Amino acid sequence: MSEPLFARVALIGLGLIGSSLCHAMRREGLAGHIAGHARSGRTRETAIGIGLVDSIHETAAEAVRDADLVVLCVPVGVCGVVAEEIAGALKPGAILTDVGSVKGAVVRDVAPHVPDGVHFVPGHPIAGTEQSGPESGFAELFDERWCILTPPPGADEEAVARLEAFWQRCGSSVERMTPEHHDLVLAIVSHVPHLIAYNIVGTASDLETVTQSEVIKFSAGGFRDFTRIAASDPTMWRDVFLLNRDAVLETLGRFSEDLAALQRAVRWGDGDTLFNLFTRTRAIRRGIIEAHQDAPAADFGRRHGKQEPGES
Amino acid sequence: MSEPLFARVALIGLGLIGSSLCHAMRREGLAGHIAGHARSGRTRETAIGIGLVDSIHETAAEAVRDADLVVLCVPVGVCGVVAEEIAGALKPGAILTDVGSVKGAVVRDVAPHVPDGVHFVPGHPIAGTEQSGPESGFAELFDERWCILTPPPGADEEAVARLEAFWQRCGSSVERMTPEHHDLVLAIVSHVPHLIAYNIVGTASDLETVTQSEVIKFSAGGFRDFTRIAASDPTMWRDVFLLNRDAVLETLGRFSEDLAALQRAVRWGDGDTLFNLFTRTRAIRRGIIEAHQDAPAADFGRRHGKQEPGES
Ligand SMILES: NC(=O)c1ccc[n+]([C@@H]2O[C@H](COP(=O)([O-])OP(=O)(O)OC[C@H]3O[C@@H](n4cnc5c(N)ncnc54)[C@H](OP(=O)(O)O)[C@@H]3O)[C@@H](O)[C@H]2O)c1
Ligand SMILES: NC(=O)c1ccc[n+]([C@@H]2O[C@H](COP(=O)([O-])OP(=O)(O)OC[C@H]3O[C@@H](n4cnc5c(N)ncnc54)[C@H](OP(=O)(O)O)[C@@H]3O)[C@@H](O)[C@H]2O)c1
Repeated sequence: MSEPLFARVALIGLGLIGSSLCHAMRREGLAGHIAGHARSGRTRETAIGIGLVDSIHETAAEAVRDADLVVLCVPVGVCGVVAEEIAGALKPGAILTDVGSVKGAVVRDVAPHVPDGVHFVPGHPIAGTEQSGPESGFAELFDERWCILTPPPGADEEAVARLEAFWQRCGSSVERMTPEHHDLVLAIVSHVPHLIAYNIVGTASDLETVTQSEVIKFSAGGFRDFTRIAASDPTMWRDVFLLNRDAVLETLGRFSEDLAALQRAVRWGDGDTLFNLFTRTRAIRRGIIEAHQDAPAADFGRRHGKQEPGES
Repeated sequence: MSEPLFARVALIGLGLIGSSLCHAMRREGLAGHIAGHARSGRTRETAIGIGLVDSIHETAAEAVRDADLVVLCVPVGVCGVVAEEIAGALKPGAILTDVGSVKGAVVRDVAPHVPDGVHFVPGHPIAGTEQSGPESGFAELFDERWCILTPPPGADEEAVARLEAFWQRCGSSVERMTPEHHDLVLAIVSHVPHLIAYNIVGTASDLETVTQSEVIKFSAGGFRDFTRIAASDPTMWRDVFLLNRDAVLETLGRFSEDLAALQRAVRWGDGDTLFNLFTRTRAIRRGIIEAHQDAPAADFGRRHGKQEPGES
């Protein structure tokens, strides 16, 4: 195996993303040593117990000491606090990045704490599942996915390129954009879809005319796919909505406007409007399959014998 | 293999549901002979070519002649027309059923055409995928799923019990309810979720600030799961919304009301309301997994090495 990309990497937060990074780094031999920290003793014990990290530390500051790359893998609402905690312990020349699902607020909260000589390059891998915790990670999470970096103007190009190489070795393609644009894009491809999924599951559990047991039994009608999305970590998602408020509200406004028009089509029996929309939406689906961002095989809640071409 | 449950079964419509029924009937030896009809010559050729049916017929009336069980597997909007076409050819004592996603309107449109001595027992298997056509079916579609029957008051109990046995042999559990209740239940577990999925995909493709190529690239953020649902057959779904209008509008009203409250929580930074909803929705997810209506393994658009217990 060739020289590791970073002699020492520190991860703060060892949940789905942190633990997946550990697996991916080991698969690729990217880190000479992985140091870790998580809030609870329980997660710290698990992380060292199952061999995610080479050393585990009681505080974030201890974990980052001497690290060449520090990755914040905590909910976006605490990135600022953590940055403040570790600021004094960061090694000059180190790269500091994060994986948070919101970028504008993280830059606002973290940047003021970053000492001179440390390269802060915010990031966000567009890859995830609805599961969380140190045992939910796997090396393939980032394969064939995209990672967005939002380097600030004047960022050290060598540092950005090294971080880019890191994500590429983890299996991802990298795209750069501004934090503002990131937050707009994510509002439509992730945040509003999650909000809608949480909302419909809430509506379903509050109906008086349909029982919860009926909702569960007959969920294969489509509902179950929304519950999967609505099973994601509540803390992570609360923080996302609090911190990407403007883009979420703007996108939600569009969604509601469009939904009102669709509702009107249903009320007035306007089959052509419905048919046209339902035809138009298939093109995006095809694009997603061609871009390998989803498998073409039908998902119906369990595996069946037939495998579609392109699936592994 | 024991005696088939029905000597001759006729299927009108040979798409996802019709072809899956063919596979399931063959697996279980449920039919002595399967006769089929579909609208287009192309589907009829495929159906006989790949051995879905034992005989293929140019008209629906020819297909149902002498059949002991007739299953309408066409979009709900044409069930009435098809019933009128076949009425004169139905064998006395035959069971006529359907698989339509709406029940009130199908009963309204079909019942007037059913001759005396033919047992009309409407049905709806709560199982599907986003794919369609004669080659999309597979025998396991109905395994561990539910099928709802809505026998009219005074229905022949023996006929209902035989149809119940049929669906059980296809792998499903059977529940009886009124068409009105069925339509309410399906509005929340299937119809409104599909409408919302179609809507968000439409919203995404109309944004000026985010390009279509960005939406596709970064769809792994959650959006791609909605495109899967929004790839379902446009004709089938247009018919569903036109024919289950009242229950869809009522449920959609609840959804929008709840979404307005959630929007307000985002606007005012009410993290507790968000956190509480996001926690509450996990309980339904657990119920669905315990009821085997979805697999617990995380789905991220491709298979990974780890299999969860309970998956096959
Ligand atoms: N899940 C996704 O699909 C996804 C995708 C892309 C990006 N992200 C982003 O990735 C980040 C982490 O998400 P995740 O899914 O990995 O979450 P997770 O599985 O819930 O893990 C969060 C980790 O952060 C730790 N943590 C929380 N507060 C902390 C604090 N104050 N100090 C130190 N550690 C703390 C937790 O420790 P304990 O275990 O001790 O509580 C846990 O190890 C979030 O910013 C999220 O927006 C998530
Ligand atoms: N898809 C699901 O997830 C699902 C689940 C449960 C119930 N359902 C219900 O099942 C029924 C069929 O859906 P599907 O998914 O199987 O649809 P599909 O794959 O699109 O197949 C529909 C079939 O109906 C035929 N057809 C259409 N109009 C006809 C007419 N006037 N006369 C004769 N045949 C006609 C089509 O023939 P051509 O191929 O020649 O066009 C095709 O074979 C619908 O009522 C739907 O509500 C669907």
